[in-house]
Amino acid sequence: MKERGGLAGDRVPGRRAVRELFVAGKRHVQTVWIARGQDANPLLDEIAELAAASGTTIRLVEADRVRSESRIEAPQGVVAVAAPIQAVALGDLTARPDAFLVALDGVTDPRNLGAVLRVAESAGVTGVVLARHRAASLSPAAVKAAAGAVEHLPIAVVGGIPGALEQMSRAGVWTVGLDADGATSVYDLAVADGPVALVFGAEGRGLSRLATVRCDVLAAIPRHGHVESLNVSTAAAVACFEVARRRAR
Amino acid sequence: MKERGGLAGDRVPGRRAVRELFVAGKRHVQTVWIARGQDANPLLDEIAELAAASGTTIRLVEADRVRSESRIEAPQGVVAVAAPIQAVALGDLTARPDAFLVALDGVTDPRNLGAVLRVAESAGVTGVVLARHRAASLSPAAVKAAAGAVEHLPIAVVGGIPGALEQMSRAGVWTVGLDADGATSVYDLAVADGPVALVFGAEGRGLSRLATVRCDVLAAIPRHGHVESLNVSTAAAVACFEVARRRAR
Repeated sequence: MKERGGLAGDRVPGRRAVRELFVAGKRHVQTVWIARGQDANPLLDEIAELAAASGTTIRLVEADRVRSESRIEAPQGVVAVAAPIQAVALGDLTARPDAFLVALDGVTDPRNLGAVLRVAESAGVTGVVLARHRAASLSPAAVKAAAGAVEHLPIAVVGGIPGALEQMSRAGVWTVGLDADGATSVYDLAVADGPVALVFGAEGRGLSRLATVRCDVLAAIPRHGHVESLNVSTAAAVACFEVARRRAR
Repeated sequence: MKERGGLAGDRVPGRRAVRELFVAGKRHVQTVWIARGQDANPLLDEIAELAAASGTTIRLVEADRVRSESRIEAPQGVVAVAAPIQAVALGDLTARPDAFLVALDGVTDPRNLGAVLRVAESAGVTGVVLARHRAASLSPAAVKAAAGAVEHLPIAVVGGIPGALEQMSRAGVWTVGLDADGATSVYDLAVADGPVALVFGAEGRGLSRLATVRCDVLAAIPRHGHVESLNVSTAAAVACFEVARRRAR
Protein backbone atom coordinates (compact mmCIF):
# COMPACT_ATOMS: atom_id res chain seq x y z
CA MET A 1 0.00 0.00 0.00
CA LYS A 2 2.79 2.42 -0.82
CA GLU A 3 1.11 5.45 -2.28
CA ARG A 4 3.75 8.13 -2.59
CA GLY A 5 3.53 10.89 -5.14
CA GLY A 6 1.89 14.23 -5.83
CA LEU A 7 -1.22 14.96 -3.81
CA ALA A 8 -2.29 18.12 -5.66
CA GLY A 9 -2.43 21.09 -3.31
CA ASP A 10 -0.54 23.19 -5.86
CA ARG A 11 -3.02 26.09 -5.67
CA VAL A 12 -2.68 27.71 -2.26
CA PRO A 13 -5.28 30.44 -1.65
CA GLY A 14 -5.80 32.37 1.57
CA ARG A 15 -3.52 34.51 3.70
CA ARG A 16 -2.71 32.05 6.46
CA ALA A 17 -2.20 29.21 4.00
CA VAL A 18 0.21 31.24 1.82
CA ARG A 19 2.12 32.58 4.80
CA GLU A 20 2.62 29.06 6.15
CA LEU A 21 3.67 27.80 2.70
CA PHE A 22 6.65 30.21 2.84
CA VAL A 23 7.39 29.76 6.55
CA ALA A 24 7.54 25.97 6.21
CA GLY A 25 9.67 26.32 3.07
CA LYS A 26 9.19 22.71 2.02
CA ARG A 27 7.76 23.33 -1.45
CA HIS A 28 9.01 25.32 -4.38
CA VAL A 29 6.73 28.33 -4.96
CA GLN A 30 6.51 29.55 -8.55
CA THR A 31 4.32 32.63 -8.28
CA VAL A 32 2.30 34.58 -5.74
CA TRP A 33 -0.68 36.48 -7.10
CA ILE A 34 -1.76 39.37 -4.89
CA ALA A 35 -4.82 41.56 -5.49
CA ARG A 36 -4.19 45.27 -5.91
CA GLY A 37 -5.84 47.85 -3.71
CA GLN A 38 -6.40 45.78 -0.58
CA ASP A 39 -6.49 47.37 2.87
CA ALA A 40 -3.16 47.21 4.70
CA ASN A 41 -2.81 43.89 6.52
CA PRO A 42 0.15 42.49 8.47
CA LEU A 43 -0.31 39.00 7.01
CA LEU A 44 -0.21 40.36 3.45
CA ASP A 45 2.89 42.41 4.27
CA GLU A 46 4.56 39.32 5.69
CA ILE A 47 3.65 37.30 2.61
CA ALA A 48 5.16 39.96 0.33
CA GLU A 49 8.36 39.99 2.39
CA LEU A 50 8.66 36.20 2.52
CA ALA A 51 8.01 35.92 -1.22
CA ALA A 52 10.64 38.56 -2.01
CA ALA A 53 13.19 36.94 0.32
CA SER A 54 12.69 33.55 -1.36
CA GLY A 55 12.98 35.01 -4.86
CA THR A 56 9.41 34.12 -5.76
CA THR A 57 7.73 36.06 -8.55
CA ILE A 58 5.07 38.38 -7.13
CA ARG A 59 2.29 39.49 -9.48
CA LEU A 60 0.09 42.38 -8.40
CA VAL A 61 -3.16 41.98 -10.34
CA GLU A 62 -6.88 42.72 -10.16
CA ALA A 63 -8.88 40.83 -7.51
CA ASP A 64 -10.74 38.94 -10.26
CA ARG A 65 -7.49 37.51 -11.58
CA VAL A 66 -6.54 36.28 -8.09
CA ARG A 67 -9.94 34.62 -7.84
CA SER A 68 -9.59 32.88 -11.19
CA GLU A 69 -6.03 31.70 -10.43
CA SER A 70 -7.18 30.43 -7.02
CA ARG A 71 -10.24 28.60 -8.39
CA ILE A 72 -12.27 29.52 -5.32
CA GLU A 73 -14.65 32.38 -4.56
CA ALA A 74 -12.91 34.03 -1.62
CA PRO A 75 -9.10 33.66 -1.75
CA GLN A 76 -8.59 36.67 0.58
CA GLY A 77 -6.71 38.50 -2.15
CA VAL A 78 -3.80 36.09 -2.44
CA VAL A 79 -2.97 32.76 -4.04
CA ALA A 80 0.35 30.97 -4.51
CA VAL A 81 1.17 28.41 -7.17
CA ALA A 82 3.56 25.82 -5.74
CA ALA A 83 4.91 22.34 -6.31
CA PRO A 84 2.35 19.65 -5.40
CA ILE A 85 2.29 18.24 -1.88
CA GLN A 86 4.11 14.92 -1.68
CA ALA A 87 2.27 12.03 -0.05
CA VAL A 88 4.10 9.72 2.34
CA ALA A 89 3.68 5.97 2.76
CA LEU A 90 1.29 4.74 5.44
CA GLY A 91 4.15 2.65 6.82
CA ASP A 92 6.12 5.82 7.51
CA LEU A 93 3.23 7.11 9.63
CA THR A 94 2.76 3.92 11.63
CA ALA A 95 6.50 3.45 12.23
CA ARG A 96 6.73 6.39 14.64
CA PRO A 97 6.64 5.19 18.25
CA ASP A 98 4.63 8.31 19.12
CA ALA A 99 2.20 7.86 16.22
CA PHE A 100 -0.92 10.01 16.67
CA LEU A 101 -2.87 9.61 13.46
CA VAL A 102 -6.16 10.77 11.99
CA ALA A 103 -7.93 8.80 9.27
CA LEU A 104 -10.87 10.20 7.32
CA ASP A 105 -13.49 7.81 6.02
CA GLY A 106 -15.69 9.35 3.34
CA VAL A 107 -15.33 13.05 4.15
CA THR A 108 -16.27 14.62 0.82
CA ASP A 109 -16.57 18.33 1.61
CA PRO A 110 -13.23 20.09 0.94
CA ARG A 111 -13.80 22.73 3.60
CA ASN A 112 -14.48 20.03 6.17
CA LEU A 113 -11.31 18.21 5.07
CA GLY A 114 -9.29 21.43 5.42
CA ALA A 115 -10.81 22.24 8.82
CA VAL A 116 -9.97 18.76 10.12
CA LEU A 117 -6.37 19.07 8.90
CA ARG A 118 -6.05 22.42 10.68
CA VAL A 119 -7.41 20.96 13.92
CA ALA A 120 -5.23 17.86 13.66
CA GLU A 121 -2.01 19.77 13.07
CA SER A 122 -2.79 22.11 15.95
CA ALA A 123 -3.40 19.13 18.28
CA GLY A 124 -0.02 17.60 17.43
CA VAL A 125 -1.26 14.83 15.14
CA THR A 126 1.76 13.18 13.46
CA GLY A 127 0.05 12.06 10.25
CA VAL A 128 -3.22 11.91 8.34
CA VAL A 129 -4.64 9.10 6.22
CA LEU A 130 -6.95 9.96 3.33
CA ALA A 131 -8.73 7.72 0.83
CA ARG A 132 -7.99 8.19 -2.86
CA HIS A 133 -11.59 7.70 -4.04
CA ARG A 134 -14.98 9.02 -2.94
CA ALA A 135 -13.24 11.52 -0.69
CA ALA A 136 -12.27 15.18 -0.78
CA SER A 137 -8.84 15.91 -2.26
CA LEU A 138 -6.45 18.75 -1.48
CA SER A 139 -8.37 21.17 -3.66
CA PRO A 140 -7.84 24.93 -3.32
CA ALA A 141 -10.86 25.14 -0.95
CA ALA A 142 -9.39 22.39 1.27
CA VAL A 143 -5.91 23.95 1.26
CA LYS A 144 -7.30 27.36 2.21
CA ALA A 145 -9.41 25.91 5.07
CA ALA A 146 -6.35 24.00 6.32
CA ALA A 147 -4.70 27.40 6.96
CA GLY A 148 -1.19 26.05 6.42
CA ALA A 149 -1.59 22.67 8.12
CA VAL A 150 -0.85 20.85 4.83
CA GLU A 151 2.71 22.26 4.92
CA HIS A 152 3.49 20.44 8.15
CA LEU A 153 1.27 17.35 8.35
CA PRO A 154 2.51 14.17 6.64
CA ILE A 155 -0.37 12.76 4.59
CA ALA A 156 -0.74 9.21 3.28
CA VAL A 157 -3.26 8.36 0.56
CA VAL A 158 -4.66 4.83 0.55
CA GLY A 159 -6.90 2.74 -1.68
CA GLY A 160 -9.41 2.26 1.12
CA ILE A 161 -9.73 3.15 4.80
CA PRO A 162 -10.70 -0.36 6.03
CA GLY A 163 -7.51 -1.84 4.55
CA ALA A 164 -5.47 0.98 6.07
CA LEU A 165 -7.02 0.30 9.49
CA GLU A 166 -5.95 -3.32 9.22
CA GLN A 167 -2.41 -2.24 8.33
CA MET A 168 -2.36 0.14 11.29
CA SER A 169 -3.52 -2.55 13.70
CA ARG A 170 -0.81 -4.92 12.45
CA ALA A 171 1.73 -2.13 13.03
CA GLY A 172 0.61 -1.78 16.64
CA VAL A 173 -1.43 1.40 16.24
CA TRP A 174 -4.70 1.32 18.19
CA THR A 175 -7.60 2.37 15.96
CA VAL A 176 -10.41 4.38 17.55
CA GLY A 177 -13.51 5.09 15.48
CA LEU A 178 -15.57 8.08 16.52
CA ASP A 179 -19.19 6.95 16.56
CA ALA A 180 -22.20 8.54 18.23
CA ASP A 181 -23.23 5.04 19.41
CA GLY A 182 -19.74 4.03 20.55
CA ALA A 183 -19.66 2.13 23.85
CA THR A 184 -16.61 3.97 25.21
CA SER A 185 -16.49 7.65 26.11
CA VAL A 186 -13.75 9.55 24.32
CA TYR A 187 -12.72 10.68 27.83
CA ASP A 188 -12.12 7.07 28.94
CA LEU A 189 -9.81 5.88 26.16
CA ALA A 190 -7.32 3.48 27.68
CA VAL A 191 -5.02 3.95 24.72
CA ALA A 192 -4.77 7.71 24.34
CA ASP A 193 -1.08 7.93 25.13
CA GLY A 194 0.15 5.01 23.00
CA PRO A 195 0.30 4.80 19.20
CA VAL A 196 -3.27 5.66 18.24
CA ALA A 197 -5.36 6.58 15.21
CA LEU A 198 -8.66 8.45 15.41
CA VAL A 199 -11.04 7.60 12.59
CA PHE A 200 -13.75 10.06 11.55
CA GLY A 201 -16.63 9.38 9.17
CA ALA A 202 -18.67 11.61 6.93
CA GLU A 203 -21.20 14.03 8.33
CA GLY A 204 -24.61 12.42 8.26
CA ARG A 205 -23.63 8.87 7.37
CA GLY A 206 -20.83 8.48 9.90
CA LEU A 207 -18.25 5.70 9.60
CA SER A 208 -18.74 3.08 6.92
CA ARG A 209 -19.85 -0.34 8.13
CA LEU A 210 -16.52 -1.88 7.14
CA ALA A 211 -14.49 0.81 8.91
CA THR A 212 -16.66 0.36 12.02
CA VAL A 213 -15.90 -3.36 12.09
CA ARG A 214 -12.16 -2.82 11.62
CA CYS A 215 -11.72 -0.30 14.47
CA ASP A 216 -10.36 -1.63 17.77
CA VAL A 217 -12.61 0.70 19.79
CA LEU A 218 -15.69 2.78 18.99
CA ALA A 219 -15.73 5.95 21.05
CA ALA A 220 -18.43 8.57 21.51
CA ILE A 221 -18.25 12.22 22.49
CA PRO A 222 -20.76 12.57 25.34
CA ARG A 223 -23.48 15.02 24.30
CA HIS A 224 -25.45 17.20 26.65
CA GLY A 225 -27.95 18.90 24.33
CA HIS A 226 -30.70 18.10 21.86
CA VAL A 227 -28.83 18.55 18.59
CA GLU A 228 -27.89 15.19 17.16
CA SER A 229 -24.21 15.43 16.44
CA LEU A 230 -21.23 17.67 15.91
CA ASN A 231 -19.92 18.28 12.43
CA VAL A 232 -16.72 16.46 11.52
CA SER A 233 -14.33 19.35 12.22
CA THR A 234 -15.75 20.13 15.66
CA ALA A 235 -15.89 16.41 16.55
CA ALA A 236 -12.26 16.15 15.44
CA ALA A 237 -11.43 19.18 17.60
CA VAL A 238 -12.92 17.59 20.72
CA ALA A 239 -11.39 14.16 20.14
CA CYS A 240 -7.93 15.26 18.93
CA PHE A 241 -7.49 17.77 21.75
CA GLU A 242 -8.69 15.25 24.34
CA VAL A 243 -6.04 12.79 23.13
CA ALA A 244 -3.47 15.61 23.11
CA ARG A 245 -4.43 16.52 26.69
CA ARG A 246 -3.96 12.91 27.79
CA ARG A 247 -0.62 12.59 25.99
CA ALA A 248 0.68 15.84 27.51
CA ARG A 249 0.15 14.60 31.06
CA MET B 1 -29.82 45.88 29.43
CA LYS B 2 -33.11 44.10 28.78
CA GLU B 3 -33.12 43.23 25.11
CA ARG B 4 -36.05 40.94 24.51
CA GLY B 5 -37.78 40.73 21.16
CA GLY B 6 -37.52 39.10 17.74
CA LEU B 7 -34.07 37.92 16.78
CA ALA B 8 -34.81 37.13 13.14
CA GLY B 9 -34.14 33.46 12.37
CA ASP B 10 -37.48 33.23 10.54
CA ARG B 11 -35.94 31.56 7.47
CA VAL B 12 -34.85 28.06 8.45
CA PRO B 13 -32.97 26.26 5.64
CA GLY B 14 -31.32 22.86 5.88
CA ARG B 15 -32.62 19.42 6.78
CA ARG B 16 -31.36 19.18 10.34
CA ALA B 17 -32.42 22.73 11.13
CA VAL B 18 -35.96 22.21 9.81
CA ARG B 19 -36.33 18.86 11.54
CA GLU B 20 -35.30 20.37 14.87
CA LEU B 21 -37.64 23.33 14.34
CA PHE B 22 -40.57 20.89 14.34
CA VAL B 23 -39.23 18.58 17.05
CA ALA B 24 -38.69 21.49 19.44
CA GLY B 25 -42.13 22.86 18.57
CA LYS B 26 -41.49 26.24 20.14
CA ARG B 27 -42.19 28.42 17.10
CA HIS B 28 -45.16 28.66 14.79
CA VAL B 29 -44.20 27.39 11.34
CA GLN B 30 -46.11 28.95 8.43
CA THR B 31 -44.82 27.03 5.43
CA VAL B 32 -42.28 24.39 4.51
CA TRP B 33 -40.90 24.57 0.98
CA ILE B 34 -39.51 21.26 -0.26
CA ALA B 35 -37.76 20.75 -3.60
CA ARG B 36 -39.31 18.24 -5.98
CA GLY B 37 -37.39 15.28 -7.30
CA GLN B 38 -34.87 14.80 -4.50
CA ASP B 39 -33.40 11.40 -3.70
CA ALA B 40 -35.19 9.57 -0.89
CA ASN B 41 -33.85 10.67 2.48
CA PRO B 42 -35.00 9.75 5.99
CA LEU B 43 -34.61 13.32 7.27
CA LEU B 44 -36.80 14.69 4.45
CA ASP B 45 -39.42 12.00 5.13
CA GLU B 46 -39.40 12.90 8.81
CA ILE B 47 -39.77 16.61 8.00
CA ALA B 48 -42.77 15.90 5.74
CA GLU B 49 -44.42 13.81 8.49
CA LEU B 50 -43.75 16.38 11.22
CA ALA B 51 -45.05 19.19 9.00
CA ALA B 52 -48.21 17.27 8.16
CA ALA B 53 -48.79 16.33 11.82
CA SER B 54 -48.50 19.97 12.88
CA GLY B 55 -50.83 21.21 10.14
CA THR B 56 -48.10 23.21 8.42
CA THR B 57 -48.55 24.02 4.74
CA ILE B 58 -46.12 21.99 2.63
CA ARG B 59 -45.26 23.34 -0.81
CA LEU B 60 -43.49 21.03 -3.23
CA VAL B 61 -41.69 23.30 -5.70
CA GLU B 62 -38.66 23.44 -7.99
CA ALA B 63 -35.24 23.49 -6.29
CA ASP B 64 -34.66 27.05 -7.50
CA ARG B 65 -37.72 28.26 -5.63
CA VAL B 66 -36.46 26.62 -2.41
CA ARG B 67 -33.14 28.38 -2.92
CA SER B 68 -34.75 31.78 -3.42
CA GLU B 69 -37.07 31.35 -0.42
CA SER B 70 -34.10 30.24 1.73
CA ARG B 71 -31.86 33.12 0.62
CA ILE B 72 -28.80 30.85 0.67
CA GLU B 73 -27.06 28.82 -2.02
CA ALA B 74 -27.39 25.31 -0.60
CA PRO B 75 -30.54 24.84 1.51
CA GLN B 76 -30.45 21.03 1.06
CA GLY B 77 -33.80 21.13 -0.72
CA VAL B 78 -35.84 22.42 2.21
CA VAL B 79 -36.63 25.69 3.97
CA ALA B 80 -39.23 26.56 6.58
CA VAL B 81 -40.70 30.00 7.23
CA ALA B 82 -41.41 30.38 10.93
CA ALA B 83 -42.05 32.97 13.62
CA PRO B 84 -38.86 34.83 14.61
CA ILE B 85 -36.72 33.53 17.44
CA GLN B 86 -37.42 35.39 20.68
CA ALA B 87 -34.43 36.78 22.55
CA VAL B 88 -34.24 36.44 26.33
CA ALA B 89 -32.86 38.95 28.84
CA LEU B 90 -29.24 38.54 29.90
CA GLY B 91 -30.46 38.51 33.51
CA ASP B 92 -32.45 35.35 32.80
CA LEU B 93 -29.25 33.64 31.62
CA THR B 94 -27.13 34.71 34.60
CA ALA B 95 -29.84 33.83 37.15
CA ARG B 96 -29.45 30.08 36.63
CA PRO B 97 -27.29 28.56 39.37
CA ASP B 98 -25.86 26.18 36.75
CA ALA B 99 -25.21 28.96 34.22
CA PHE B 100 -22.84 27.79 31.48
CA LEU B 101 -22.76 30.64 28.97
CA VAL B 102 -21.01 31.48 25.72
CA ALA B 103 -20.49 35.10 24.62
CA LEU B 104 -19.33 36.02 21.13
CA ASP B 105 -17.29 39.16 20.67
CA GLY B 106 -17.14 40.31 17.06
CA VAL B 107 -17.84 37.04 15.22
CA THR B 108 -19.09 38.34 11.88
CA ASP B 109 -19.27 35.21 9.70
CA PRO B 110 -22.77 33.69 9.87
CA ARG B 111 -21.51 30.13 9.29
CA ASN B 112 -19.06 30.52 12.15
CA LEU B 113 -21.85 31.85 14.37
CA GLY B 114 -24.06 28.89 13.46
CA ALA B 115 -21.27 26.38 14.02
CA VAL B 116 -20.53 27.82 17.46
CA LEU B 117 -24.22 27.64 18.41
CA ARG B 118 -24.32 23.97 17.34
CA VAL B 119 -21.22 23.16 19.39
CA ALA B 120 -22.50 25.10 22.40
CA GLU B 121 -25.89 23.42 22.45
CA SER B 122 -24.29 20.00 22.10
CA ALA B 123 -21.96 20.72 25.04
CA GLY B 124 -24.87 21.66 27.30
CA VAL B 125 -24.39 25.42 27.27
CA THR B 126 -27.40 27.07 28.96
CA GLY B 127 -27.36 30.39 27.08
CA VAL B 128 -25.56 32.46 24.45
CA VAL B 129 -24.85 36.19 24.43
CA LEU B 130 -24.58 38.00 21.09
CA ALA B 131 -23.86 41.64 20.31
CA ARG B 132 -26.45 43.61 18.35
CA HIS B 133 -23.96 45.49 16.18
CA ARG B 134 -20.87 44.57 14.18
CA ALA B 135 -21.71 40.89 14.63
CA ALA B 136 -23.36 38.12 12.67
CA SER B 137 -27.13 37.84 13.10
CA LEU B 138 -29.35 34.77 12.88
CA SER B 139 -29.38 34.90 9.09
CA PRO B 140 -30.47 31.87 7.06
CA ALA B 141 -26.82 30.80 6.69
CA ALA B 142 -26.31 30.97 10.47
CA VAL B 143 -29.55 29.13 11.22
CA LYS B 144 -28.65 26.34 8.77
CA ALA B 145 -25.14 25.94 10.23
CA ALA B 146 -26.63 25.81 13.73
CA ALA B 147 -28.42 22.60 12.68
CA GLY B 148 -31.33 23.18 15.06
CA ALA B 149 -29.39 24.54 18.03
CA VAL B 150 -31.28 27.88 17.81
CA GLU B 151 -34.52 26.05 18.73
CA HIS B 152 -33.11 25.03 22.11
CA LEU B 153 -30.49 27.59 23.14
CA PRO B 154 -31.70 30.74 24.93
CA ILE B 155 -30.03 33.73 23.28
CA ALA B 156 -29.61 37.23 24.72
CA VAL B 157 -28.70 40.18 22.51
CA VAL B 158 -26.77 43.01 24.14
CA GLY B 159 -25.58 46.46 23.16
CA GLY B 160 -21.96 45.50 23.74
CA ILE B 161 -20.02 42.49 25.01
CA PRO B 162 -17.82 44.39 27.52
CA GLY B 163 -20.90 45.74 29.32
CA ALA B 164 -22.45 42.29 29.32
CA LEU B 165 -19.28 40.83 30.85
CA GLU B 166 -19.53 43.36 33.65
CA GLN B 167 -23.16 42.42 34.25
CA MET B 168 -22.23 38.72 34.32
CA SER B 169 -19.44 39.32 36.84
CA ARG B 170 -21.82 41.25 39.10
CA ALA B 171 -24.25 38.33 38.88
CA GLY B 172 -21.56 35.92 40.05
CA VAL B 173 -20.77 34.36 36.67
CA TRP B 174 -17.04 33.82 36.14
CA THR B 175 -15.98 35.18 32.74
CA VAL B 176 -13.26 33.29 30.86
CA GLY B 177 -11.88 34.84 27.68
CA LEU B 178 -10.29 32.44 25.21
CA ASP B 179 -7.02 34.01 24.15
CA ALA B 180 -4.00 32.42 22.49
CA ASP B 181 -1.78 34.35 24.93
CA GLY B 182 -3.90 33.56 28.00
CA ALA B 183 -1.88 32.73 31.12
CA THR B 184 -4.14 29.85 32.19
CA SER B 185 -4.58 26.58 30.31
CA VAL B 186 -8.17 25.82 29.46
CA TYR B 187 -7.51 22.47 31.17
CA ASP B 188 -6.67 24.18 34.47
CA LEU B 189 -9.73 26.38 34.91
CA ALA B 190 -10.53 26.53 38.61
CA VAL B 191 -14.05 27.68 37.82
CA ALA B 192 -15.26 25.16 35.25
CA ASP B 193 -17.99 23.69 37.44
CA GLY B 194 -19.47 26.92 38.81
CA PRO B 195 -21.45 29.58 36.91
CA VAL B 196 -19.15 30.36 34.01
CA ALA B 197 -19.14 32.19 30.68
CA LEU B 198 -16.69 31.42 27.87
CA VAL B 199 -15.95 34.42 25.68
CA PHE B 200 -14.75 33.93 22.10
CA GLY B 201 -13.42 36.61 19.78
CA ALA B 202 -13.35 36.94 16.03
CA GLU B 203 -11.06 34.82 13.91
CA GLY B 204 -7.91 36.78 13.20
CA ARG B 205 -8.38 39.67 15.57
CA GLY B 206 -9.36 37.66 18.65
CA LEU B 207 -11.04 39.31 21.63
CA SER B 208 -11.41 43.08 21.64
CA ARG B 209 -9.14 44.96 24.01
CA LEU B 210 -12.08 45.99 26.19
CA ALA B 211 -13.46 42.45 26.42
CA THR B 212 -9.98 41.18 27.30
CA VAL B 213 -9.76 43.64 30.19
CA ARG B 214 -13.22 42.75 31.49
CA CYS B 215 -12.70 38.97 31.61
CA ASP B 216 -11.89 37.43 35.00
CA VAL B 217 -9.50 34.91 33.41
CA LEU B 218 -7.79 34.63 30.03
CA ALA B 219 -7.41 30.99 29.03
CA ALA B 220 -5.49 29.40 26.18
CA ILE B 221 -5.94 26.10 24.41
CA PRO B 222 -2.48 24.50 24.46
CA ARG B 223 -1.26 24.02 20.90
CA HIS B 224 1.09 21.34 19.73
CA GLY B 225 1.62 22.22 16.07
CA HIS B 226 2.82 25.03 13.84
CA VAL B 227 -0.48 26.46 12.70
CA GLU B 228 -1.26 29.62 14.62
CA SER B 229 -4.74 29.12 15.91
CA LEU B 230 -7.98 27.21 15.65
CA ASN B 231 -10.98 28.79 14.00
CA VAL B 232 -13.71 30.00 16.33
CA SER B 233 -15.98 26.95 16.01
CA THR B 234 -13.21 24.42 16.67
CA ALA B 235 -11.83 26.53 19.53
CA ALA B 236 -15.37 26.65 20.95
CA ALA B 237 -15.63 22.87 20.57
CA VAL B 238 -12.45 22.26 22.57
CA ALA B 239 -13.27 24.77 25.30
CA CYS B 240 -17.01 24.04 25.66
CA PHE B 241 -16.50 20.28 25.78
CA GLU B 242 -13.63 20.62 28.26
CA VAL B 243 -15.92 22.62 30.57
CA ALA B 244 -18.69 20.04 29.98
CA ARG B 245 -16.28 17.22 30.87
CA ARG B 246 -15.34 18.98 34.10
CA ARG B 247 -18.97 19.68 35.02
CA ALA B 248 -19.97 16.06 34.37
CA ARG B 249 -17.48 14.70 36.88
